[in-house]
Amino acid sequence: VSGGTVVVVGAGSWGTTVAAMLAAKAPTMLWARSPQLASALNRTGENRRYLPGVSLPPTLRAMSSLPDAVSDAEVVLVAVPSHGFRAVLEEMAPGLRDGAAVVSLAKGIEAGTNLRMSELITEVLPDHPAGVLSGPNLAHEVAAGQPAASLVAFSDERLARRVQQMLHCSTFRVYTGTDVVGCEIAGASKNVMAIAVGISDGLGFGENTRAVLVTRGLAEQARLGVALGGRPLTFGGLAGVGDLVATCTSPQSRNRTVGLELGRGRRLDEVLVSMVMVAEGVRTAGPLVDLARCHDVEMPIAQQVAALISGKTSSADAVAALMERPSRPEWDDALIRAMPQ
Amino acid sequence: VSGGTVVVVGAGSWGTTVAAMLAAKAPTMLWARSPQLASALNRTGENRRYLPGVSLPPTLRAMSSLPDAVSDAEVVLVAVPSHGFRAVLEEMAPGLRDGAAVVSLAKGIEAGTNLRMSELITEVLPDHPAGVLSGPNLAHEVAAGQPAASLVAFSDERLARRVQQMLHCSTFRVYTGTDVVGCEIAGASKNVMAIAVGISDGLGFGENTRAVLVTRGLAEQARLGVALGGRPLTFGGLAGVGDLVATCTSPQSRNRTVGLELGRGRRLDEVLVSMVMVAEGVRTAGPLVDLARCHDVEMPIAQQVAALISGKTSSADAVAALMERPSRPEWDDALIRAMPQ
Repeated sequence: VSGGTVVVVGAGSWGTTVAAMLAAKAPTMLWARSPQLASALNRTGENRRYLPGVSLPPTLRAMSSLPDAVSDAEVVLVAVPSHGFRAVLEEMAPGLRDGAAVVSLAKGIEAGTNLRMSELITEVLPDHPAGVLSGPNLAHEVAAGQPAASLVAFSDERLARRVQQMLHCSTFRVYTGTDVVGCEIAGASKNVMAIAVGISDGLGFGENTRAVLVTRGLAEQARLGVALGGRPLTFGGLAGVGDLVATCTSPQSRNRTVGLELGRGRRLDEVLVSMVMVAEGVRTAGPLVDLARCHDVEMPIAQQVAALISGKTSSADAVAALMERPSRPEWDDALIRAMPQ
Repeated sequence: VSGGTVVVVGAGSWGTTVAAMLAAKAPTMLWARSPQLASALNRTGENRRYLPGVSLPPTLRAMSSLPDAVSDAEVVLVAVPSHGFRAVLEEMAPGLRDGAAVVSLAKGIEAGTNLRMSELITEVLPDHPAGVLSGPNLAHEVAAGQPAASLVAFSDERLARRVQQMLHCSTFRVYTGTDVVGCEIAGASKNVMAIAVGISDGLGFGENTRAVLVTRGLAEQARLGVALGGRPLTFGGLAGVGDLVATCTSPQSRNRTVGLELGRGRRLDEVLVSMVMVAEGVRTAGPLVDLARCHDVEMPIAQQVAALISGKTSSADAVAALMERPSRPEWDDALIRAMPQ
């Protein structure tokens, strides 16, 4: 399919930001579940709920009927949280043109099935190529035009280059890749690592401890990604270390904030009620550890986060458990063997 | 050589911290250039100049004669800045026992020769095995007993394990490796990247921009390291991404502080006079870019930092030059081909 429009599904802060960037280059449709939000957005040129203060280009139009919104799409970018992802794909299916590409902007794993978002796309929309856009992209900073970059991956690199063309601009650099699996595992697991870093910060530890958690967390992410067929280099790139660093060091990160409050001794249920938006890592920790167990991959940091979230350990015990592991070489043989991939 | 003592050469904040950790397990000698500092340290059990407020164990003794200090050493850890490294090696040479291992704790490249510290060790002390200890180790946090970790690398892994045994404790995890080259290139170049991140912060950019600089900076570091014979995985580990993250996000980092002030528009000479301790990245940027040029390695971020330090560009122009590069795949073929190593 070519010559169609580009459609963003989901009018949260990131979906709206991406739609605004696309609209600066070509007419773009944004789907919002709420008809009120869609019409307010068309009327005011602003998404006051999720991206207040940012003027949206007039070439961006919003709509609340999903099959209608995607009907002319060459590329659909899906920016809804992982727990609503499957339902949205099912809802858009009747409206999609043959061969339209579908790109996940979500970072999570489906609870119950442990499926990645591109796997959901392939399951629900088997005739549509599935890709992913992922990187260190705090929506408000990108919307403000600060320099940023991201990775778009499709197994067919030509599709990645097509999305790159649509998005790339002077403040948002888009790189291409073909490692969809690695990109998605990196995106889903970084939220869990950000909770671990938040816990360490909440316990009063400093930069060294944080750097160790980031580094060893990255090693865990890469182990799982490689076990599932991803490539090690992806974890050294924007969707890997880039996104991990942004999420683990940003005061704006919801996942880090959850960890921070847990580290300070608050209860998870108290922390969650005070948050407007989703902290994906809370939902992803369990499925991630489950997925790792199924593939015999050791993820000690993710395991401690999952145990903490399910009430089986305390913050202090979780950190102690990590530090008391026996000393060893930095990289295990399984990952070293995987390097030629 | 076995059964000897361990000696730390250099009583700055990091040398003193490492010596204190070693002394908690076995008697340790610390060499301080200043006889006054050595005797004050022995008298008060504190290094008031470089590590004030930290009580040193009584098993730590200081001395100011270098050949005498190293005379019984099985392992010598050298914690002096890169520009003084060669002179210290020459000064200790007459005192060293046959076969004593020498470990670099410095992070830099010698100006003029572009040699790494382990190359200096091999040049000045050809009969002594050369290793490196490197990781995200802000001295004050390690000295305060916060959880931290580091990598020790020797081409002979048994030596790495020997140093690991000497240092590893419940708050300081030591991993072993054999990639001395990768470890040193990572350590030297991260200071230059930290200057770049500081510039971005000083210009008012946020977490995304920082994450991009960290990620693409890491890619540059890895390209150079691999071109010199290092291994890609090292750059994903504690001495690579770990140390880079700590240095680029810490308010305590001297290199990041230099960049921050440059980004805010101050002149380099003004910034440097206000600093007590060395910002290695200022010295390393030139030799690093030179080394990269000799090996045909593209290091756009390091090049902009070097140009800024030598007065050839401005902070804003440096950032613009980086964002205006053409779009491309995330990883170039040279690094992908190098992955089987």
